[in-house]
Amino acid sequence: MDFKHLLADRTNQMGVNVIREILKVVAQPGMVSLAGGIPAPQSFPMEIIRELTGIVIEKYASGAFQYGPTEGFWPLREVLADYLGDKEIKADPGDIIVASGSQGVLDAVGKVLISRGDMVAVEAPTYLGALQAFTPYEPEYVRMDTDDDGLIPGSLEDVLTSGKIKFVYLVPTFQNPTGRTIPAERRRQIAAIITRHNALLVEDDPYGALRYRGRDIPPIKTLAPDNVIYVSTLSKVFAPGLRIGFCLAPAQIRKWLVIVKQGIDLHTSTFNQALAAEYIGAGFLASHLPNIIDLYRPKQEAMLSALDAYFPKGFKWSRPEGGMFLWVEGPPGFDMEQAYWQAVKRKVAFVPGKYFFTTRQEGLETMRLNYTMTDEETIRASIKTLSEVIRGQERH
Amino acid sequence: MDFKHLLADRTNQMGVNVIREILKVVAQPGMVSLAGGIPAPQSFPMEIIRELTGIVIEKYASGAFQYGPTEGFWPLREVLADYLGDKEIKADPGDIIVASGSQGVLDAVGKVLISRGDMVAVEAPTYLGALQAFTPYEPEYVRMDTDDDGLIPGSLEDVLTSGKIKFVYLVPTFQNPTGRTIPAERRRQIAAIITRHNALLVEDDPYGALRYRGRDIPPIKTLAPDNVIYVSTLSKVFAPGLRIGFCLAPAQIRKWLVIVKQGIDLHTSTFNQALAAEYIGAGFLASHLPNIIDLYRPKQEAMLSALDAYFPKGFKWSRPEGGMFLWVEGPPGFDMEQAYWQAVKRKVAFVPGKYFFTTRQEGLETMRLNYTMTDEETIRASIKTLSEVIRGQERH
Repeated sequence: MDFKHLLADRTNQMGVNVIREILKVVAQPGMVSLAGGIPAPQSFPMEIIRELTGIVIEKYASGAFQYGPTEGFWPLREVLADYLGDKEIKADPGDIIVASGSQGVLDAVGKVLISRGDMVAVEAPTYLGALQAFTPYEPEYVRMDTDDDGLIPGSLEDVLTSGKIKFVYLVPTFQNPTGRTIPAERRRQIAAIITRHNALLVEDDPYGALRYRGRDIPPIKTLAPDNVIYVSTLSKVFAPGLRIGFCLAPAQIRKWLVIVKQGIDLHTSTFNQALAAEYIGAGFLASHLPNIIDLYRPKQEAMLSALDAYFPKGFKWSRPEGGMFLWVEGPPGFDMEQAYWQAVKRKVAFVPGKYFFTTRQEGLETMRLNYTMTDEETIRASIKTLSEVIRGQERH
Repeated sequence: MDFKHLLADRTNQMGVNVIREILKVVAQPGMVSLAGGIPAPQSFPMEIIRELTGIVIEKYASGAFQYGPTEGFWPLREVLADYLGDKEIKADPGDIIVASGSQGVLDAVGKVLISRGDMVAVEAPTYLGALQAFTPYEPEYVRMDTDDDGLIPGSLEDVLTSGKIKFVYLVPTFQNPTGRTIPAERRRQIAAIITRHNALLVEDDPYGALRYRGRDIPPIKTLAPDNVIYVSTLSKVFAPGLRIGFCLAPAQIRKWLVIVKQGIDLHTSTFNQALAAEYIGAGFLASHLPNIIDLYRPKQEAMLSALDAYFPKGFKWSRPEGGMFLWVEGPPGFDMEQAYWQAVKRKVAFVPGKYFFTTRQEGLETMRLNYTMTDEETIRASIKTLSEVIRGQERH
């Protein structure tokens, strides 16, 4: 049977995920992967989880295993409202929608907002998972310029002035892939621009809690509450396998997010939401988060100091105060994909940065490095290996 | 802020879920609901679940809480292959995709296959959740006739002959809303028609395991394996709040289901998949299923005998050998929605059947009754109340 003629137009356009193909080599035995973007299993609060399962079964009994409201499990929405309050975001529990990971929010946002050909503004470079969520709804992407402080406000202004933008998608804190954070003053400018244009911003904040140095910067949501869909997740501070994401959207959008989510998966796992409610509500998140930060900080410091020690002149990299990624930029003309294949031969993998751009031929000289899954010694050794690969390539 | 101009075309067309509105009264205190479609909490294997959480944390440790493959957790796919084997469906573990409820499968199917205006053939009446999954992709529905034995093969033949149908959607066993089951001979005819037309059938089988009398009838998937996407769920035999559904699709379609699922939610909860793997793999499902059946059988018998005892002449109803629903048809011209509002005044709710049809003015005289959530005595009393409402309405 050939079913090709049955596929939707969007499907024929999707094509195979190139990055998935390139990363297949990561599974090879002995490969050190600085390529992934996943939390260290050592960061999961296993003892707490064991305790939580007992608490939840005791407290909610069959209620934790029954169908639940599409909007989310009420006790979780309650504690998330407080959790957001700590980030200076005002939220009533009824305003929060829980979804199956922040991916689930992004899919629902795409479904509610994007018609074929609609324009969605994204950073260059941007988070690939968001593109995977939006692309099936067939938008056109409009790129916005970034520098070491993330999105350049003037570029946002230009994009919003030049055409009809359905929404702007940003990861303002410890961005994936760059690790960059938009400073407070620039956030105020961005909020002012968004508000002045009556535009809608999707602010994705998965990494904000993973701060190793410096002070928290309030989300843009606090500066333009009526114009921002704030999206976050417990994947980096609890456990990603539980698939708990959430959002706080303007009421008019929220209503539709709930309706489409009903068609997507009815609701997110009640049991996992109950585990999350107790994890946050009983103070386990607050007590465990420092452990996660203590786990990642030295890994990040090891990677930064190895880059300082080994990488050649002409290369520069981000120095984020948190998150999971560093972004390395080589000199103009450097071919990082070629370096990738050489590095893989020496059993070190990363992600060539060009895959995070929506326009071709951009970011050819860049790479994304992750440090959460690897120990400090291996990080140092693999950065040394990468530097040798890079120096070797420069000599040719 | 007014964001109406930002909504996608599909969103503006979705409108409010009428049935959700009509069922809001169900939450009123003292209301007996024969309206829902949810399992009794008494059917959940709470003691087993408590044990399973310990087993899973012990056996898989952090692996049960990490990101996992989009296709599903391998140990679950392995036991599901055996589970399907017991239903005479041949499946390799690698052929199975796990999703967030069967709703998650139906959404992905819609996303992969439906472009705006594509024709999807559904039974009259059909399952509302499937329409909620498909409708955002903007199909046109083509209705197929049914009788007491479910879909009429001639009607399927006519529909496939008359136009381009993207796929046919059926619930062949203990259908929602009618409880009807397509007999074996008719399944062979349907399989032959589907195969002859090179058509694609989405066979949704959430209730097949809930059989109170009679013998299992093999799914249509066993008769036309290359032309059927078989969809099922653990919501009715384990716990719906865990959101574990799965499907077995032709390889060419499966590939795309995985790609779109990556954008929808990356993957389904690893922990819940691990619980399900152990529930099935260690024999708990096999040992617990008889308890669920023993719980529901007397409820269904109580409802059938109360209908026999109280309902007036001119009304008829299905007599399914399993599942969760009965379907009552009044005489032509009877207005079941009017009866609904009268019944609600007397604190009994059901679903007027017209909501399960894709064409207006159909099924006005019908109702769906659920018996899983109510005890036998209340079932008898509320059927008696309904009969009084109906007789009262007939006299006017």
